Amino acid sequence: MTRPVEKIALIVAGGAGNRMKTGIPKQFLLLKGYPVLMHTLDVFYRYDQGMRIILVLPETEIPAWKRLCEDYGFQIGHEIVAGGETRFHSVKRNLAKIPDQCLVAVHDGVRPLVSVSTIDRCFATALKFGNAIPCIEIPETMRKLSRKGSEQVDRYRYRLIQTPQVFDSEVLKKAYAQEYRKQFTDDAGVVESLGYTINLVEGNPENIKITYPHDLKVATAFLQ
Amino acid sequence: MTRPVEKIALIVAGGAGNRMKTGIPKQFLLLKGYPVLMHTLDVFYRYDQGMRIILVLPETEIPAWKRLCEDYGFQIGHEIVAGGETRFHSVKRNLAKIPDQCLVAVHDGVRPLVSVSTIDRCFATALKFGNAIPCIEIPETMRKLSRKGSEQVDRYRYRLIQTPQVFDSEVLKKAYAQEYRKQFTDDAGVVESLGYTINLVEGNPENIKITYPHDLKVATAFLQ
Repeated sequence: MTRPVEKIALIVAGGAGNRMKTGIPKQFLLLKGYPVLMHTLDVFYRYDQGMRIILVLPETEIPAWKRLCEDYGFQIGHEIVAGGETRFHSVKRNLAKIPDQCLVAVHDGVRPLVSVSTIDRCFATALKFGNAIPCIEIPETMRKLSRKGSEQVDRYRYRLIQTPQVFDSEVLKKAYAQEYRKQFTDDAGVVESLGYTINLVEGNPENIKITYPHDLKVATAFLQ
Repeated sequence: MTRPVEKIALIVAGGAGNRMKTGIPKQFLLLKGYPVLMHTLDVFYRYDQGMRIILVLPETEIPAWKRLCEDYGFQIGHEIVAGGETRFHSVKRNLAKIPDQCLVAVHDGVRPLVSVSTIDRCFATALKFGNAIPCIEIPETMRKLSRKGSEQVDRYRYRLIQTPQVFDSEVLKKAYAQEYRKQFTDDAGVVESLGYTINLVEGNPENIKITYPHDLKVATAFLQ
């Protein structure tokens, strides 16, 4: 439990943010006066000031991000790399930069409200069992669509999945050596397809993804 | 489609709000300066100023609510009735007050952000097909707990369910004539257990249930 293992955060901010209907990619939108991504990197920095942070951005957005870092005097050290066509490709092409025998946390750049304790739970469990992903309970009654319309299901048997998703780097590389399939909506799904069991840990309910304009309002409320 | 049918809102605010850890029941907490319940009643009033609104409160909270209505000069007409032990019992004991051949919208008192258009969609579909409930898509990757841990499921085949849930009053009464079962987590489940097909319509994402303190912050953000 105390073996020293390098921890790396791979923060994926590949999206061009078209759903926001602003010209600005959603990872650059301001949340309490700072671009969303700066909040995200800050949480990982607060979790472990010595950890390596790799930020994946669309190639075209890299100059804008560098300018933002200068303008805001952003001091948290990180490497910047270019993403691919989809989130899957953004992770896949950058795993070559990750050494073997370390733990890598893949995190959505647009989840600035992940808590330090969620990150800590993920790494602690991944250290013991090889992987861990954060989840929360389903907040409402839930139905499953069916041929006859829909039917109620037991929501307590389901979980909503968040990031960071933490994996042994070798397992993650092996998983991402596969060809892309459309059911690969998160890293856990890619790893699971090789037959690995995924370990769930408790996330934090504020850890929402900034996707729509109202998400930014909600995130602002959570930060108050 | 144009047959005139009486529409009634049965607003259930039976909870004592212990999860809020305030002394105040959550339906009385202030949202933008007004008790949550006043916002809720106001949306139904804006949907149809002539509709009958029946408010179900814990017996012990009725005097406090009447005082709030006086203090805030709350003008929207409504009947106040006492609830039962659970939400199921609160609905069941008050259905006797609802005439046959009308449409009744059962709504959670702590969902003040339901939109007029969600209410309208529910009534319009229930008028045609006998019932309608609002739903939204699942916002995240989802997993189902299983013997081996968990497995990813296709979230696009599921929906989160909201209120108001609108039914032909006779069907609702027949459904609530049943004994309570623990899987009856909403009205649609009670009606469905008699073999009726439930019709889904689009809800609105802001239509959250005020359950935890952070929900109040989120609701405030949505109202801005």
